[in-house]
Amino acid sequence: MKNVYLDHAATTPVHPKVLEAMLPYFSGKFGNPSNLHDIGREAKNAVEEARSKTAAFIGAKPGEIYFTSSGAESNNFAIKGLALANSQKSKHIIVSQIEHFSILHPVKTLEKSGFTVTYLPTDKLGMVDPDDVAKAITKETILVSIMHANNEIGTIEPIEAISKITREKGVLFHTDAVATAGWIPVNVDALGVDALSLSGHQFYGPKGAAALYVRKGVRIKPQIEGGIQEDGRRAGTENVPAIVGLGTAAELAAAEVMHRMQHTSQLRDKLQKGLQGRIEDMIVNGHPERRLPHNLYVSFWYVEGESMLLFLNMEGVSVSSGSACTSRSLKSSHVLTCIGTDAAVANGTLLMTLGTGTNADDIDYVIEKLSPIVQRLREMSPLYEDVIKKKKAAAR
Amino acid sequence: MKNVYLDHAATTPVHPKVLEAMLPYFSGKFGNPSNLHDIGREAKNAVEEARSKTAAFIGAKPGEIYFTSSGAESNNFAIKGLALANSQKSKHIIVSQIEHFSILHPVKTLEKSGFTVTYLPTDKLGMVDPDDVAKAITKETILVSIMHANNEIGTIEPIEAISKITREKGVLFHTDAVATAGWIPVNVDALGVDALSLSGHQFYGPKGAAALYVRKGVRIKPQIEGGIQEDGRRAGTENVPAIVGLGTAAELAAAEVMHRMQHTSQLRDKLQKGLQGRIEDMIVNGHPERRLPHNLYVSFWYVEGESMLLFLNMEGVSVSSGSACTSRSLKSSHVLTCIGTDAAVANGTLLMTLGTGTNADDIDYVIEKLSPIVQRLREMSPLYEDVIKKKKAAAR
Repeated sequence: MKNVYLDHAATTPVHPKVLEAMLPYFSGKFGNPSNLHDIGREAKNAVEEARSKTAAFIGAKPGEIYFTSSGAESNNFAIKGLALANSQKSKHIIVSQIEHFSILHPVKTLEKSGFTVTYLPTDKLGMVDPDDVAKAITKETILVSIMHANNEIGTIEPIEAISKITREKGVLFHTDAVATAGWIPVNVDALGVDALSLSGHQFYGPKGAAALYVRKGVRIKPQIEGGIQEDGRRAGTENVPAIVGLGTAAELAAAEVMHRMQHTSQLRDKLQKGLQGRIEDMIVNGHPERRLPHNLYVSFWYVEGESMLLFLNMEGVSVSSGSACTSRSLKSSHVLTCIGTDAAVANGTLLMTLGTGTNADDIDYVIEKLSPIVQRLREMSPLYEDVIKKKKAAAR
Repeated sequence: MKNVYLDHAATTPVHPKVLEAMLPYFSGKFGNPSNLHDIGREAKNAVEEARSKTAAFIGAKPGEIYFTSSGAESNNFAIKGLALANSQKSKHIIVSQIEHFSILHPVKTLEKSGFTVTYLPTDKLGMVDPDDVAKAITKETILVSIMHANNEIGTIEPIEAISKITREKGVLFHTDAVATAGWIPVNVDALGVDALSLSGHQFYGPKGAAALYVRKGVRIKPQIEGGIQEDGRRAGTENVPAIVGLGTAAELAAAEVMHRMQHTSQLRDKLQKGLQGRIEDMIVNGHPERRLPHNLYVSFWYVEGESMLLFLNMEGVSVSSGSACTSRSLKSSHVLTCIGTDAAVANGTLLMTLGTGTNADDIDYVIEKLSPIVQRLREMSPLYEDVIKKKKAAAR
């Protein structure tokens, strides 16, 4: 049986060059970077080299990069760390309704301790309107956090336009770039942001290494406290092999990103057209142009997304029904709710995310396998039966 | 040149069997455990197997283990998570003065938001007196955190006696077992604790994987929020390879701990006696009996610890001047201050921690190299010159 992995938004395999770079740091060069002897210094140098590579990847300076353990930790650190370090004057935060829960839950927690939060809606394509940001900013606003692109619908937000506003008004601006880093160009100066989250395992780096960029001079309160690591901003012995892996993945991504965009968007378009040609009543979610190149998030009427993915799994095809971080909660996506998708169709949603190793045969295979699955599931749906009857009646 | 690593309290190399267990999970079995397809489920199963092994290692149930990224994160999670989830009635916390900074800094942060904290002293051997705990507990007390053993002086605290008191008074009890897990037996029921921190890279597991045990029924507030991972208590894609490594390291430690204690304590005693026989004016810190088996923390009058470790480094010997987590801050140890060590002698301190690979030749080599280094450094110290003059005058 063929194996086709179309779930790169959930996680990617570690690139062979990344693993090769990591391997010496488990048993040979295993030192603790805080130690002053040679074994410690060797580890420290490796971490600092990875910091330089990660910084270069997003146009930052090495001293502006703080390593963390995951995108979720970076987002929590950004929201709580920036809000708590800059709350002496006022306590208003602005986020979009389609942020990842690792943004939304921390702002909810801050709300309970006296912060006020504005949750901005998006249009039906998932776009935040910069004018809405401008209108929402008050004298009390200290922080805006809008994601670079949404991890489900793939819509790329107008970060440059928003940052012009936040700069003008003197408000801090964080963007969650976990879904974009490695897949489209990410440059902190071009974006105009003060803080940015990214995660290694999203772009062929290892799990366990992520980063938060914080512009020089911006104050942030540590969330994991009690150590001198990461310039005193994040305690805990550095995960040296994973950090080395993140640096190498960043270096590879910097070199390959244009190719990745071209490769995956061509195949993604082929997949989209192929499915559209075979399956009726299919909705492509997100923005038609401003969308992640490797992302296809489709909804089908009269089917259950989870059944589709289990049937595809039996054919060797790995996809998701939405965000991996919430998949087991079995709730329908808050992102689809925000863009106004009907709950009935939202349940029949599949997230397919391509990778550098995806090829045309894989795409043909998925098109071939998915259409009969959708058909079979629809035939089992009482709702669909009604629809067919109505269609037949209309045809008579 | 010989290489002797006596800094196992800073970090340990990854055991070959641990690395072997981890390797399949980087590129082959690279799935995200939250995904419902086979590649995700394979990763999920690996994480759950590691959870069972980690639980078995400390006599806990799998559902009581939360994986984190470091001992520091586990300690932060324990202190803030337990305090904030149980603060509805009152807000008093008790810790010892010799806790790791990843306990002391979080309680300082809580103090700023309305909690009160009692910092218990120790005796000159670093022991917390259980009676002091009993006296410090008031109707307002919700949490006690006393470390299982101190990472610098190695003193093993009377956790069993303290837990009898906390149980009787209905107060939660957390212990930081980062320094002990893998080196002496650790069993949550025997210790009688409600929460316990441990870290993989301290006992031949990888960096990036640690755990917090929380007894069933005890409430804890997530600190990294916004994901369904770890039963909703800790968001972020699981670091699958590192977690698998932690599980394997726990399994190895459970089988080997008695041997490790015997092996390291014999060699540690040999090192201690060897140095005592060659170097005068040397103080052995910590408790003479209730001490970690692989720990030797010595202070020398009239020398600078950092110079000693740099000279030893030139001879291929890796040691620390104290806790790795604070080494670069160049402050003298808060632990030595607490046990009443004179600041002059505290500066001349070396922490030597042995491992399973340490052998008698290594010990002979260190004894041979260290004594002339101490002598040379003393000859450069003006303080020592005075002492010699006085000794000579007394001898005349």
